[in-house]
Amino acid sequence: MRNWLLPEYIADILPATARQVESAKAAMLEQFRCAGYELVLPPLIEYVDSLIAEGDTALDLKTFKLDDQLSGHQLGLRADITPQVARIDAHLLGHRTGVTRLCYAGSVVHTRPNGLMSSRQPMQVGAELYGYAGIEADIEIIELMLSTLDQVKVPQLRLDVGHTAIFRGLATAAGLSPQATRELFAVLQNKDAASIAEQVAGLAEPYRSAFLALPELYGPASVLEKARTRLPSLPEVELALMQLSAIARAFEGRVAISFDLSELRGTHYHTGLIFAAYAPGWAVELARGGRYDNVGRRFGRARPATGFSLDLRDLIQILPERGSAMGVRVSNRHLPAAQSEVARLRAAGEVVIIDYLGESAEAIGCNRELIPAADGWQIVPFN
Amino acid sequence: MRNWLLPEYIADILPATARQVESAKAAMLEQFRCAGYELVLPPLIEYVDSLIAEGDTALDLKTFKLDDQLSGHQLGLRADITPQVARIDAHLLGHRTGVTRLCYAGSVVHTRPNGLMSSRQPMQVGAELYGYAGIEADIEIIELMLSTLDQVKVPQLRLDVGHTAIFRGLATAAGLSPQATRELFAVLQNKDAASIAEQVAGLAEPYRSAFLALPELYGPASVLEKARTRLPSLPEVELALMQLSAIARAFEGRVAISFDLSELRGTHYHTGLIFAAYAPGWAVELARGGRYDNVGRRFGRARPATGFSLDLRDLIQILPERGSAMGVRVSNRHLPAAQSEVARLRAAGEVVIIDYLGESAEAIGCNRELIPAADGWQIVPFN
Repeated sequence: MRNWLLPEYIADILPATARQVESAKAAMLEQFRCAGYELVLPPLIEYVDSLIAEGDTALDLKTFKLDDQLSGHQLGLRADITPQVARIDAHLLGHRTGVTRLCYAGSVVHTRPNGLMSSRQPMQVGAELYGYAGIEADIEIIELMLSTLDQVKVPQLRLDVGHTAIFRGLATAAGLSPQATRELFAVLQNKDAASIAEQVAGLAEPYRSAFLALPELYGPASVLEKARTRLPSLPEVELALMQLSAIARAFEGRVAISFDLSELRGTHYHTGLIFAAYAPGWAVELARGGRYDNVGRRFGRARPATGFSLDLRDLIQILPERGSAMGVRVSNRHLPAAQSEVARLRAAGEVVIIDYLGESAEAIGCNRELIPAADGWQIVPFN
Repeated sequence: MRNWLLPEYIADILPATARQVESAKAAMLEQFRCAGYELVLPPLIEYVDSLIAEGDTALDLKTFKLDDQLSGHQLGLRADITPQVARIDAHLLGHRTGVTRLCYAGSVVHTRPNGLMSSRQPMQVGAELYGYAGIEADIEIIELMLSTLDQVKVPQLRLDVGHTAIFRGLATAAGLSPQATRELFAVLQNKDAASIAEQVAGLAEPYRSAFLALPELYGPASVLEKARTRLPSLPEVELALMQLSAIARAFEGRVAISFDLSELRGTHYHTGLIFAAYAPGWAVELARGGRYDNVGRRFGRARPATGFSLDLRDLIQILPERGSAMGVRVSNRHLPAAQSEVARLRAAGEVVIIDYLGESAEAIGCNRELIPAADGWQIVPFN
């Protein structure tokens, strides 16, 4: 094996892209800051029990395990930052009783890629709002997600919205066992009509029809009206439809929005509204989120919570590449005489590159040069 | 074990510090950019053979190992970014024949902390210059290191400078075996006079006296004159003293500078000038670097190289804490009417926080609030 090879689904980010990633990240964090989200930087490694909630097999399989020589315990290399932020809200900031807004940006590592086009080292950027259960908090988070994507100039955004309480409410009312619930969840995720029909064949009405209707309840806000007639009026279902209508009103005319009442996604922890943002030509979502109340319970504090995250490494692929600024060459011969002028130019944001070898304009990336003038220094074209 | 506990020497960075870390990092990367250093973001995990040069036992012991399910090979969680940057210069940017300047900022993870006050997850920030062997390149790197520390307002910086070629030149000329060289290196590192005397007792002059003199050759630039009289005039030693004199001239009057001719440091790969920056009251160096020519050989391209790095997580401890800006509260009742005014204020860099619970000024972190006015919106004091 040649030692410059990288493992599969692992890549360097090279200069042309790296500055773009850093400046997109900085712009996102600045936007979060202005909306009152405080930055936290949780560590890359933690005890496995902190990183992975009991029973979250999907996250467990994704997480690299390490042996800690100091403690003898097993550590994990984080595959998701959300549980770390929940730990911080519950424990380290546990004295706060009001709303806590937190944001983060950092790499996570997966044992296997999420898809053929994915990296095993996504750069997860996200924001979370703890301590308020109202739909306005979800609206705030969706606003933040959309303006984050707007800011980095993602074209023609589309918002997909679902609600996990609809399926859960129906499953409970229909008396499904946990096992049957999981099986039905799986076939609904795949929108496999034949298997759904088979799974619900033995169920009583109105639940059989309700489950059969779910995959068809997909489209614009009018779907919510249709859902009111086709789904039984359980309290959970009523509340979910009210919340979805609030979303429809909040974002009407501002973004193309689709509702999908059979959308459940694989994530273990969502408890209410879920949403994702898409752009044309991209099969996977650019950002996703939802409500996951009580995520902090295993850290000693159950609180309402909603949030979103995106993979900046994915996102950067759809953004227009920016050319890097051409610099000002200064010959090594003019140093240290030119030193204070070089410092002045750099402090003003100019790229000034010292040339030791007499390189070409293209090789050194400069279109101007700094040369001595009668009364100091001047910048002249270089090519 | 409580699942909110973190492993030893692993910590979250909480809001008060996290913004400070991010903005110091952004300022450093901006400074590197203006000096022509291109950013690279190498991955957190790689094949162990790429991360660790053969024989670098110290780095090997520091590196967590992982099993790659995809390839069956062993991966490492990077404990140092420098070898990754050397790989990129040698391989991915291998078509460039001139000077290549690269910089990076990212976390590394160590199996054990470097010291009792260290984190096992330093945040390594650094810059490297490939392709030019002259002392001017080392001067450029030291300038960059000092201005990086200046920029984040480290007080009363002190620069320590050494040169690995002096010890190596003496050891070769004295005919020391590799084994004897390693042993002498170890006792010199510890500046253990008795052990040094013992080790060199059997050596011929002028080498015995030269090795005994090394630990005394410590102090300001005048030490270099003393070294010229006390060390034999080997070509390696002459060149090293010339380079050290160039450093003395370049930084005279700009920073307190000490030369230390027995300073070798533990790093495996340095081949010439080495340096470190200190501040009063801090035992460990704030930043360090040096020349490590041919570091890229194992990746297929041996080139001159010099660079520096620092641990931002360490550094942040000595910086003055910045208070976070107080925000503007807006009651949830005023939304969505206030929405465009909120967006306008945030775009102007103002922190505007939606209040759902009627929280106190202190709890929500706001000293002003946005309220309706006769002709739009106004900001009034909030406390």
